[in-house]
Amino acid sequence: MILIKDVYVNGKRQDILIEGNKIKKIGEVKKDEVEDVEIIDGKKKIAIPGLINTHTHIPMTLFRGVADDLPLMEWLNNYIWPMEAKLNEKIVYWGTLLGCIEMIKSGTTTFNDMYFYLEGIAKAVDESGMRAVLAYGMIDLFDEERREKELKNAEKYIKYINELNNSRIIPALGPHAPYTCSKELLMKVNELAKKYNVMIHIHMNETLDEIKTVKEKTGMEPFVYLNSFGFFDNVNVIAAHCVHLTDEEIRIIKEKNINISHNPISNLKLASGISPIPKLLKEGINVTLGTDGCGSNNNLNLFEEIKITAILHKGVTLDPTVIKAETAFNFATKNGAKALNIKAGEIKEGYLADIVLINMDKPFLYPKENIMSHLVYAFNGFVDDVIIDGKIVMREGKILAVDEEKVYEKAEEMYEILRS
Amino acid sequence: MILIKDVYVNGKRQDILIEGNKIKKIGEVKKDEVEDVEIIDGKKKIAIPGLINTHTHIPMTLFRGVADDLPLMEWLNNYIWPMEAKLNEKIVYWGTLLGCIEMIKSGTTTFNDMYFYLEGIAKAVDESGMRAVLAYGMIDLFDEERREKELKNAEKYIKYINELNNSRIIPALGPHAPYTCSKELLMKVNELAKKYNVMIHIHMNETLDEIKTVKEKTGMEPFVYLNSFGFFDNVNVIAAHCVHLTDEEIRIIKEKNINISHNPISNLKLASGISPIPKLLKEGINVTLGTDGCGSNNNLNLFEEIKITAILHKGVTLDPTVIKAETAFNFATKNGAKALNIKAGEIKEGYLADIVLINMDKPFLYPKENIMSHLVYAFNGFVDDVIIDGKIVMREGKILAVDEEKVYEKAEEMYEILRS
Repeated sequence: MILIKDVYVNGKRQDILIEGNKIKKIGEVKKDEVEDVEIIDGKKKIAIPGLINTHTHIPMTLFRGVADDLPLMEWLNNYIWPMEAKLNEKIVYWGTLLGCIEMIKSGTTTFNDMYFYLEGIAKAVDESGMRAVLAYGMIDLFDEERREKELKNAEKYIKYINELNNSRIIPALGPHAPYTCSKELLMKVNELAKKYNVMIHIHMNETLDEIKTVKEKTGMEPFVYLNSFGFFDNVNVIAAHCVHLTDEEIRIIKEKNINISHNPISNLKLASGISPIPKLLKEGINVTLGTDGCGSNNNLNLFEEIKITAILHKGVTLDPTVIKAETAFNFATKNGAKALNIKAGEIKEGYLADIVLINMDKPFLYPKENIMSHLVYAFNGFVDDVIIDGKIVMREGKILAVDEEKVYEKAEEMYEILRS
Repeated sequence: MILIKDVYVNGKRQDILIEGNKIKKIGEVKKDEVEDVEIIDGKKKIAIPGLINTHTHIPMTLFRGVADDLPLMEWLNNYIWPMEAKLNEKIVYWGTLLGCIEMIKSGTTTFNDMYFYLEGIAKAVDESGMRAVLAYGMIDLFDEERREKELKNAEKYIKYINELNNSRIIPALGPHAPYTCSKELLMKVNELAKKYNVMIHIHMNETLDEIKTVKEKTGMEPFVYLNSFGFFDNVNVIAAHCVHLTDEEIRIIKEKNINISHNPISNLKLASGISPIPKLLKEGINVTLGTDGCGSNNNLNLFEEIKITAILHKGVTLDPTVIKAETAFNFATKNGAKALNIKAGEIKEGYLADIVLINMDKPFLYPKENIMSHLVYAFNGFVDDVIIDGKIVMREGKILAVDEEKVYEKAEEMYEILRS
């Protein structure tokens, strides 16, 4: 049991009692009510639900800073793809650990990932103590042989993750995008999602170029095209990016309850554009936040996405009342949990104990007027204590489960291999 | 003397020797070359020039989070102006100290401020060890009596600051904006700037509304209007915001060598719009960065402005090659120093010793491929050591010159007065 005493949570100072991997009680908890309990003094702290990052390629931490400020195809052809060709399970494992350390330090407790070598990713997630939804990224480039291989891999990884029997690690399906995956692959993905009861994680409408490609090929916008063969039927989908959308596509997103992963920093940095989030909100669509990979961000600090989301759309629409502080914060908590179908994203009795504590003695958090405003507009994202699934994974800024120094050293070593 | 040993600076590991308030030598410095020297081990660190924030209203730290997500006039009328009416020298002093702590922790060594009660601001700047250019903010609202009072105040403060005889504190003139100041006031400001050899700090073209007001009144856009009576002649001007500009105004900015203070976060948050920075750069105009006050940001972390500047204009122009990492970094260093006419913004022999050290052992700074990219796109802004004017003001994250805890306590106390 863990007892967080006198912490500011849900609008007042109270205690939080954690038993197993769940929040047992919020309110006043006397020390003699509980036994075998670890007590955390919350007096100077606030508690928030751990953040949920709904679009990552986590091992790409190792590609951080490799190339910036370039046109997309130059970036992919000359830098990213040659390095990705050298990846292996071991490299991916260390890159994931580096990412987990960064996410834990910046208050993220769950991430939704699409990548390769999932054995390496799953091992790192397990050791770090984080919660993750992991999908193998499928690309068939409209080639039948490749399609069969990709689908086999995807199914293999669902089974692999299920067999780990770790409730913190959840399998998913990751068809890369409509411009890289055939209709046959996408139809099969819908079937597999229903068969294994897993969600689908896909890139949608990230750039004008790819939309043009899909339209030229199919005569339809990407969402219309996928909807035409039932891709969204009876499955749970997270669509990352959604930068450029027609009204008809927004109608489909609403009708099919598709979750959006908004990645404003990546979309700005790669010059993809700005997603019409205020429009999606008006339709009641579930918007969540993602950082994307470190090749295009270049960090995993979800608090940056919260702030940029809250300010960017004001500046673009010239309306200071769109996406208020709490709305942006909910994108990264409640809405993320809803999208991933996990009982998290809020600090409530019976919910998963994914809790982040922030010491308020920081100059940019004074005066202590409006905590929600401070979290969204003033905070730098670096938190003090992190509890995931009822276990303390960071205490006073120190990661407990993994050796930070060793991970940094190994990350450099892996990077040398990629660059050689 | 201060000797920083084995630090990564200007592309390689070397030593930096500081004597008095200047950088004496960069290269290899043997310990027996120097005497009475304080040695800082730079092995795990990089050294960068201290950042220069060219547009602040520093005591507004006390207004942080008071009101967000509101239309501008509601924000001013119902929140900011009633609180500003209660300010006094003591409140401003503590608000400034809070701001100085925040700026030092996030690597800023110089700021360019416009506000009231400059005795309080100057006292706090002096004690904190920071470097600042201070202007009294003049608003006459086209009233003659008020004009005389404002000009008298402005002149009084120039003399007051000159008499402090502290080379870190530099006086300037701060006419608020063309829509709040009369032509007579602005003409007199140009005269005073020449008489006292001080620069002018002014808000220009922040919102479409104020531009409309000036056009209705004068028949001209703000820059054209001010230029029509010689406001920009033979003086050094920093124009903050410049969100909406005509080509003719850009021509004037170029011709008159006007410095721009780009404040992207404030401009987005207040829904003012997005300044056409790539266009200004093409004209060779000197662009610098500012945070604006904490009422509209809500922090003073200039690294956030650097990152947003580097990504925002890519997303808006759909061109990933505009404003490369180093360009954005120079806005906050070299260009700021040029605008304020101080020999800083670079680490060079003979320059002011305003130096920031960053420990690279942070997860988001691995792998150590591209330091400039990391500083711009991945860094959170929280630095380890800060030297200003040859004095260590922060060591390993600990502010030396002022008592942080006391400042936090006093900030809360002052805030209570403002809100009562």
